[in-house]
Amino acid sequence: MSTGAESGKDTRGGPTGRPDAGDPSATAAKQAFLTHLEELRGRYLPEVLFLLDDVLREAELARSGLAEMCRYHFETGGKRLRALLPLLVADCLGEDPAKAVAMGAACEMLHNATLVHDDVQDGDEARRGRETVWHRFGVARAINLGDAMFYFTLLLAQRAPVDGERREALARRMLTETLRVIDGQEQEFALRASARPSMEQYLDMIEAKTARFFVLGMAGSAEMLGREPAVVEGLTEGARHLGILFQIQDDVLDLYGDKGRDQRGSDIAEGKRSVLAVHALENAAPDDAGWLLEVLDKERAATSSADVERVAGLFERLGSLSFAVKEMHARRQAALTAIGTLKQPRLSAMMQGISETVLEPIRDLV
Amino acid sequence: MSTGAESGKDTRGGPTGRPDAGDPSATAAKQAFLTHLEELRGRYLPEVLFLLDDVLREAELARSGLAEMCRYHFETGGKRLRALLPLLVADCLGEDPAKAVAMGAACEMLHNATLVHDDVQDGDEARRGRETVWHRFGVARAINLGDAMFYFTLLLAQRAPVDGERREALARRMLTETLRVIDGQEQEFALRASARPSMEQYLDMIEAKTARFFVLGMAGSAEMLGREPAVVEGLTEGARHLGILFQIQDDVLDLYGDKGRDQRGSDIAEGKRSVLAVHALENAAPDDAGWLLEVLDKERAATSSADVERVAGLFERLGSLSFAVKEMHARRQAALTAIGTLKQPRLSAMMQGISETVLEPIRDLV
Repeated sequence: MSTGAESGKDTRGGPTGRPDAGDPSATAAKQAFLTHLEELRGRYLPEVLFLLDDVLREAELARSGLAEMCRYHFETGGKRLRALLPLLVADCLGEDPAKAVAMGAACEMLHNATLVHDDVQDGDEARRGRETVWHRFGVARAINLGDAMFYFTLLLAQRAPVDGERREALARRMLTETLRVIDGQEQEFALRASARPSMEQYLDMIEAKTARFFVLGMAGSAEMLGREPAVVEGLTEGARHLGILFQIQDDVLDLYGDKGRDQRGSDIAEGKRSVLAVHALENAAPDDAGWLLEVLDKERAATSSADVERVAGLFERLGSLSFAVKEMHARRQAALTAIGTLKQPRLSAMMQGISETVLEPIRDLV
Repeated sequence: MSTGAESGKDTRGGPTGRPDAGDPSATAAKQAFLTHLEELRGRYLPEVLFLLDDVLREAELARSGLAEMCRYHFETGGKRLRALLPLLVADCLGEDPAKAVAMGAACEMLHNATLVHDDVQDGDEARRGRETVWHRFGVARAINLGDAMFYFTLLLAQRAPVDGERREALARRMLTETLRVIDGQEQEFALRASARPSMEQYLDMIEAKTARFFVLGMAGSAEMLGREPAVVEGLTEGARHLGILFQIQDDVLDLYGDKGRDQRGSDIAEGKRSVLAVHALENAAPDDAGWLLEVLDKERAATSSADVERVAGLFERLGSLSFAVKEMHARRQAALTAIGTLKQPRLSAMMQGISETVLEPIRDLV
């Protein structure tokens, strides 16, 4: 738990601050983080999973069709990272992680509520090798399930074992951060309708859509546990950069990753305004921008693998990939700096470990 | 405010307890209620409407596409009955109705969140003469808006000017009653897939889908204002019967009403398992039940007005209409009895006034 960038000072890498593939300090930070995560997962995940089901009983819906769909959805699995973030932070703050279990369950429920509705919105038929809820139970029932899960989230938050005032603050944070996530999706729809989205718009969008979830899990946990505003703010800033790093990595992996994706370049087929697409649209000559937009905007099924390769070639020519990699490293650095100001070695080590873990799959692209 | 069925004793009508069309006591109760409602509307509705918009600012979304859609939706109008119910109850309990304004705004937001998603689920293209949100802005964005409105609801409830414990109880009630409403929709989907739904299933479904909204607005208001459990329970029971009465009336008006509906028998075209359809399916000979089911289950556009007339004829032959009317009167009576046990004349008068108002449009069918 105590390796690496304590008190925010970056102890790794060369003068650019970028660790290279074999950096032993980066590897150690990642390993320590993963060990910590597994410890927490082994010890507390059963309780989180119990709560995810118990809330159905609390709401007297254990025999409702909503319960059937909810259980079906959770059987698709997932890393449960959202559930563990509040516990990680609690532990690093020297608190009993058990205090963050209800909040962890709430965050996991919330993340999955958005997934159920996202799959309807995007028309995705499969998730982790299983039919999505709407594809199996119909759109109307999937909308219902997502609605219910958004409300289960808040029932779970009401179980947090803290005083009433802090529970109310937690509920307020869950509401306001989630509203920013929903607004992020709204911004994403607007970006898709735009021929020349700016990088600034893209970064605003992913901060809302993705990073506020990290802010909720990390800063929200510290707030619930009664930590002073400076700690909550430092974690907010760190989680914000980490979330942006996470989303850019996700965008890059879609084209350059080799694990767990069904199809190389599915974001291109879907017309997603990824970090790569936005960089390329901003920097391409008018002709290139024109055909790129055509590829992005045509029907998903009409996009060939030749289209994807041609787009990938353009991204490389324009330096979109190196831009993304550079941005990720800058965000990692900003996250570590923000946490470093708090002078809490365990928090710093955790942030270093998480960012190394997120960066790991793109290490070869550096 | 003091006419009619005080302390639950039914002072009107003949030995059946049914008032006839010209019953002056029923008319007076209705008039007094409507006057009271208009008073509250005139005095407090502007503040409710202000809050419905102010919550967008509170969530820092005033310039989001979500705000644009939200305002568009609220411009479709509506009676704002959900907003006024908590104020009515507060006033009848001798409290300042201003204390219930935030809760009224929350209930109105909640009702409209369900409408936005309902329209997607049912494929309805128009509401009160305007395009529905999904039809104008697309399904994905309408799902987003409904999600946001469900969460605006709880931000509004957090503004209730009562102590933290009562605010938390209010949030819990909003969550649990709404989950029952969502479960009611789930039950309705199941009923539509059923060839022989029972009246018991129908009544369970409308209690969840419709009546729990009334329970929230009425019992929830008393609870928020710190009234003793007996009052909360009496209002729960009264509101439950009132809500069932309201939904049965809505079902009946679709076929027999003459105001404000675009098309006679649209429930039949939609295949809705209304009180009339459920009664008929339960009581028809196999042949009649067979063709009724065929009409209900065919595409909306394929249902002719001859189909509707033939179904209406069946409903009359089988006594489905008289069954519904009888059930409505029984529910009115049960609501008045439940409130009567509280021995609070103003609450009793209010309940009498509301039920007379709900029964008014079907008076000629008695």
